[in-house]
Amino acid sequence: MLYLVGLGLGDADDITVKGLRAVRGCARVYLEAYTSVLTVGKEALEEYYGKELILADRDLVEQGADEILKDADVTDVAFLVVGDPFGATTHSDLVLRAVHAGIPYRVIHNASIMTAVGCCGLQLYNFGETVSLVFWTESWKPESFYDKICKNKTAGLHTLCLLDIKVKEQSIENMMRGKKIYEPPRFMTVNQAADQLIQIIRRRREEGAELGVTEDTVCVGVARLGADDQAVRAATLAQLASCDLGGPLHSLLVTGRLHPLEAELLRTHAEPSAPLQLEQQ
Amino acid sequence: MLYLVGLGLGDADDITVKGLRAVRGCARVYLEAYTSVLTVGKEALEEYYGKELILADRDLVEQGADEILKDADVTDVAFLVVGDPFGATTHSDLVLRAVHAGIPYRVIHNASIMTAVGCCGLQLYNFGETVSLVFWTESWKPESFYDKICKNKTAGLHTLCLLDIKVKEQSIENMMRGKKIYEPPRFMTVNQAADQLIQIIRRRREEGAELGVTEDTVCVGVARLGADDQAVRAATLAQLASCDLGGPLHSLLVTGRLHPLEAELLRTHAEPSAPLQLEQQ
Repeated sequence: MLYLVGLGLGDADDITVKGLRAVRGCARVYLEAYTSVLTVGKEALEEYYGKELILADRDLVEQGADEILKDADVTDVAFLVVGDPFGATTHSDLVLRAVHAGIPYRVIHNASIMTAVGCCGLQLYNFGETVSLVFWTESWKPESFYDKICKNKTAGLHTLCLLDIKVKEQSIENMMRGKKIYEPPRFMTVNQAADQLIQIIRRRREEGAELGVTEDTVCVGVARLGADDQAVRAATLAQLASCDLGGPLHSLLVTGRLHPLEAELLRTHAEPSAPLQLEQQ
Repeated sequence: MLYLVGLGLGDADDITVKGLRAVRGCARVYLEAYTSVLTVGKEALEEYYGKELILADRDLVEQGADEILKDADVTDVAFLVVGDPFGATTHSDLVLRAVHAGIPYRVIHNASIMTAVGCCGLQLYNFGETVSLVFWTESWKPESFYDKICKNKTAGLHTLCLLDIKVKEQSIENMMRGKKIYEPPRFMTVNQAADQLIQIIRRRREEGAELGVTEDTVCVGVARLGADDQAVRAATLAQLASCDLGGPLHSLLVTGRLHPLEAELLRTHAEPSAPLQLEQQ
């Protein structure tokens, strides 16, 4: 049996009781370590589970799936994923390989950032399509996510912006030389994301474009959701561009039309020195 | 401290280790019992937690919040919610009351149907706005959800349809007589939901309206997601109208544009006797 076990958002003990039992009963346990990160490290998890973990990077999951699935028809193998197991495309691929190899699989669900963001007060029913913000490079500065956010906003819907994670990336130079030297991991912060959005807004304003979302749009920055030191900050996009919500992972929410109850809960997440001006929304 | 603890989707052991510890340490534990239901009953949970549970119906949460929050500034109180605690509006209200009373609160997240549906193979990134289907009455047959589904479909996005739950409802007769007699609980099934959608499609077709979603649209019915006996069935809307996925809770997904990997995983959830015709999508 292949168990796909969600680890939830923050700490070692965010695993479910069912998930923990599955992990402890498995012959091999893989930890997916490139589409998200836990606030705790691999060693802390190993101690908590009483099991050795095998780190599964992108190469192993995408090219070494046979290794992960080896003997899973006669023994139990666990594949641990931060959040819920079905957030990232590559895990669908692993499931398909299991199905085609005649290996039964079971999913043990857990909290995902995609619903946990509801704790800031915005209703999950009122979200439109989720978008991803990637780190811009010198030559690649995609803007399509801004249009999706504006489309949601125009329809009165909120947007969850998932922020880029770069784990085990090679520089172009090292890649071309075939050197397996990896850059340090990078996690996009709320202020970096807000800054990128504001650059798009300014550029389009100069072009005279109509702007669905501006520097004054009320947004919410969240960091380390579910952990003891989680941060939730409601403020304008401009204010979030200069905030520091601390260590990873961060996500950004852009509000659409606010229901009075949503507005009231958002206010509790504003800095006392910068109360929200929600009338302008 | 007020703990809002998500119970996840299916079984008693879907609670997180962190959540279980919080529940066991609380002076009073409320079980929210009207926006969703667990596949296990109250007694099974009480035995599992080793704690007595107080059932919190709509009246208690909406009108008796002071009772729930009593002494929560000096003792610990847990409020248990199936899924993740922030799926339903009334829990935002409880949190606001706690904030205004100066009571600290903490959310312990868990799996929600809103992300767990990803296990059928449809990517969560490709979902538009979530809709709710309510039981029609003789005099009230709302259709607005159909338009939202079509809007998502036109934009290439999938739709999650949450299906109505009627718990502790009074008949109009009993309500008018002031009799606190309640109807047996009702849970909309996938085939009932599909039937309602098909009625709308037929009515609109007679009117000559353009139809974004038809009887041939590929949909997915899910039942008891996360439980041992969960059911996931990919089929056309017409086929789902005559399927029986067993006991509650059910949800319906309407597909938008399908990525090849999504299509491939969907196929594994089709009945062998009714393979999906995805080329027509």
